[in-house]
Amino acid sequence: MERFTLAYETYGTLNADRSNAILVCHALSGDAHVAGYHTGHPDEKPGWWDDAVGPGKIFDTDRFFVICSNVIGGCQGSTGPSSPAPDGKPYALRFPMVTVDDMVEAQRRLLDRLGIRKVFAVTGGSMGAMQALQWAVAHPDRVEHVLFLASTPRSSALHIAFNETGRQAIYADPNWNNGDYYGGPAPTRGLAVARMAAHITYMSEASLEHKFGRNLQDHETLPYTLAEPEFAVESYLAYQGRKFVERFDANSYLYITKAIDYFDIGADYGSLRAALERTQCAFLVVSFTSDWLYTAQQALDLVEPLRELGRPVEHHHIEAPFGHDSFLVEVDLMTPVVGGYLSRAWTSRRE
Amino acid sequence: MERFTLAYETYGTLNADRSNAILVCHALSGDAHVAGYHTGHPDEKPGWWDDAVGPGKIFDTDRFFVICSNVIGGCQGSTGPSSPAPDGKPYALRFPMVTVDDMVEAQRRLLDRLGIRKVFAVTGGSMGAMQALQWAVAHPDRVEHVLFLASTPRSSALHIAFNETGRQAIYADPNWNNGDYYGGPAPTRGLAVARMAAHITYMSEASLEHKFGRNLQDHETLPYTLAEPEFAVESYLAYQGRKFVERFDANSYLYITKAIDYFDIGADYGSLRAALERTQCAFLVVSFTSDWLYTAQQALDLVEPLRELGRPVEHHHIEAPFGHDSFLVEVDLMTPVVGGYLSRAWTSRRE
Repeated sequence: MERFTLAYETYGTLNADRSNAILVCHALSGDAHVAGYHTGHPDEKPGWWDDAVGPGKIFDTDRFFVICSNVIGGCQGSTGPSSPAPDGKPYALRFPMVTVDDMVEAQRRLLDRLGIRKVFAVTGGSMGAMQALQWAVAHPDRVEHVLFLASTPRSSALHIAFNETGRQAIYADPNWNNGDYYGGPAPTRGLAVARMAAHITYMSEASLEHKFGRNLQDHETLPYTLAEPEFAVESYLAYQGRKFVERFDANSYLYITKAIDYFDIGADYGSLRAALERTQCAFLVVSFTSDWLYTAQQALDLVEPLRELGRPVEHHHIEAPFGHDSFLVEVDLMTPVVGGYLSRAWTSRRE
Repeated sequence: MERFTLAYETYGTLNADRSNAILVCHALSGDAHVAGYHTGHPDEKPGWWDDAVGPGKIFDTDRFFVICSNVIGGCQGSTGPSSPAPDGKPYALRFPMVTVDDMVEAQRRLLDRLGIRKVFAVTGGSMGAMQALQWAVAHPDRVEHVLFLASTPRSSALHIAFNETGRQAIYADPNWNNGDYYGGPAPTRGLAVARMAAHITYMSEASLEHKFGRNLQDHETLPYTLAEPEFAVESYLAYQGRKFVERFDANSYLYITKAIDYFDIGADYGSLRAALERTQCAFLVVSFTSDWLYTAQQALDLVEPLRELGRPVEHHHIEAPFGHDSFLVEVDLMTPVVGGYLSRAWTSRRE
């Protein structure tokens, strides 16, 4: 499409030589609202990474100018399947398929508009890290540091399998109607099932056990029924599903999970090594011990060829219990690693 | 209910003192047809554990009399939600909720009918092993050996979470109609999604990667479409879903996954230790390195208290790549361990 909207937010102040920008890229279900509260919405929930972005935080807005945009194909302000096409009707499945490369190309136009030639860092977890890596490969002269959290240079068969199960749950909802549901009932039941299945993969066996175990929901003894949630973990998943469908468009879920599945940074450049050879930035790669969706090995799949190529790269495998969600919730554990890295990098640059 | 049908098959010959019986208990999606081919159905697929049950195999039918029955609540010949109630209509959700204890109680009546007081061994993987353990605790004087494969004494929050996601996929299918779909279209789309999600948990990241990786389905290059499976792993999951709904009843899936979730052998006896104190048999416990659904730790959760109680117990943690499915497909790896154990146990008994 010729023209599109990209929703974005910024935090902090761009310095005089426009050298202190950090681009934060969100994961599957994120949006541009990375930190703080929107004025006029005092009871709204904070941004999705509010613990990490702000004055004195990992991404210190006293020092850095933080930018976060909603991905193209999304449903939180950027143009996506739910947006009106030139004919005035929602694109629905007429929206072109989206890749991580497209997401980055949209962000590049945003940075051009903001007059930012080079970002000090680009970062994100999960699909956000895929965008960060794509930036370093597609636009090597525009990135000083990539902070790559809980991700992989190449989506695996397991990622595709879980994403496809979620998509099939949406397709199976008659309200989905081949994507043409705007103005009518949305496929919320299918989307809720997709979210439930995905949500499990973001946690760890240990964190589920610690949080819920076999605790019952609203009962002293097992009621033995299909009519209501019996275990607390069932109730929790139902809540996650309900909450998600209030804010997310099912078609965007299809498009964005596909973009994740398509991600294989080496594929467009002949090989992973050829792709990484293009990079000119330094890398911080972080993985989490309990993350079984994006594993330590997948982090090493990026770290090892970078080292072979002589690129500056630090890898930290952080002991953390919360599975893939660790990059969102284990901000205290990430502070010395990610905040420390940024601080050192910024200081040494100023010297 | 007062009367019910239990479908069962037997293999081999019961010896004169009725001491060579092995009861095989099936997992969630299994049935009584554990081995061989049904006469008159030459193109039918073999039993679900055909590699393990037969002359000269792990469960050697030259030596043992093998019995396998379809669980109560199932849909492969035993009475379940799809069976006619006394009023002639299918039970549907009027069928009482089922527990692993109920499954064992149904099998006990079968053994009584067959005139078998004590089985030489009771075995199974996953939910089959739960039944085996339940036998040892509920009827300690009727079991000589329990062979407990790829299972746990207590379903975890992770098990419940995945099972609940599958149930929600079924509930979300309008054809489910609160369980009242017999005679009309069945909730096959919801059941297929449930099966897809579950099937992923039976494999391992490594086996998915080895089998499919990022291979495309019927294409040389990515078509970038939602209209058809693009990756081979998507096509494989769709096939698993389609195959499953041809043979399985959605309501049985609900009841049996609930029975798995309810399983906590210690709960009915005050504690795990109190339950295990009742046992009088010897135990072989097998876990598989790549099984992330039923982990080594869960096997140890059974092994350790048994050892403290001085019960004879062998634990083998087998290096195998196929995840939870290893107990079904890694028969060669299981042969020395399980077949060897049975052989030694039988020989020492005869001496």
